[in-house]
Amino acid sequence: MTDQTNRSLSDRALATDPAPYYQAHVFCCVNERPDGHPRGCCKSKGAEKLRNYMKARAKELGLKDVRINQAGCLDRCELGPTVVIYPEGIWYSVASIEDAEAVLQEHLIGGKRVERLMLQPGDKLPEDRLQRKMGIPAE
Amino acid sequence: MTDQTNRSLSDRALATDPAPYYQAHVFCCVNERPDGHPRGCCKSKGAEKLRNYMKARAKELGLKDVRINQAGCLDRCELGPTVVIYPEGIWYSVASIEDAEAVLQEHLIGGKRVERLMLQPGDKLPEDRLQRKMGIPAE
Repeated sequence: MTDQTNRSLSDRALATDPAPYYQAHVFCCVNERPDGHPRGCCKSKGAEKLRNYMKARAKELGLKDVRINQAGCLDRCELGPTVVIYPEGIWYSVASIEDAEAVLQEHLIGGKRVERLMLQPGDKLPEDRLQRKMGIPAE
Repeated sequence: MTDQTNRSLSDRALATDPAPYYQAHVFCCVNERPDGHPRGCCKSKGAEKLRNYMKARAKELGLKDVRINQAGCLDRCELGPTVVIYPEGIWYSVASIEDAEAVLQEHLIGGKRVERLMLQPGDKLPEDRLQRKMGIPAE
């Protein structure tokens, strides 16, 4: 897993690539679906408010070369409100102001990961995250 | 420049990070501003049609683990329609179906760069790109 990640990042970069435009580029899904859609949507779970908070707070904290962007559907709807941070490609479920603050402080400022909010590649439903946290292997 | 890029990617990755969810995550700005806004906007330059083309064409070409996403303002409005591809963090100005096809074929399939469409970190206005292409140093 570890080697795969690092290989993937370095495999895709070329020696002649320019320096990054942003040090961290954060994409917050704010996609809206009609009420009752089986997959749900991030907007109905407060994604817009959370994105606005992250953007304003990043500015307040003086984060340089960081952009908090809105995005269309990131296709992990059931796990949202979904956020992905590049270039490192770390995915989070950010469901509250406290979650958003943790991502700002621990990931963007601290350079760490907020393990409790992270999505793993195999996570499809909220139950997957719960089972993983409880140490129950996926079926 | 070269070292800076590679350092930046590897600096941000942690050994415990999960494998990437998408091999390439493409964000196409589709932001709209009112007519006459001094910065202009990507939507007024056909960004939505170009994003829809890239999404449909990526599917048609059978690109695996690639997502063509729409995004809010990427803040390089003057240079748009703007596209950024992560994790490698390469920025393009994609102004036509031919440009979109070149990014799909040369970057996403070929693993190369479409030099003529790339944005450099210092590019602010279309004139900067033109001057760079003509070998005129920035003032």
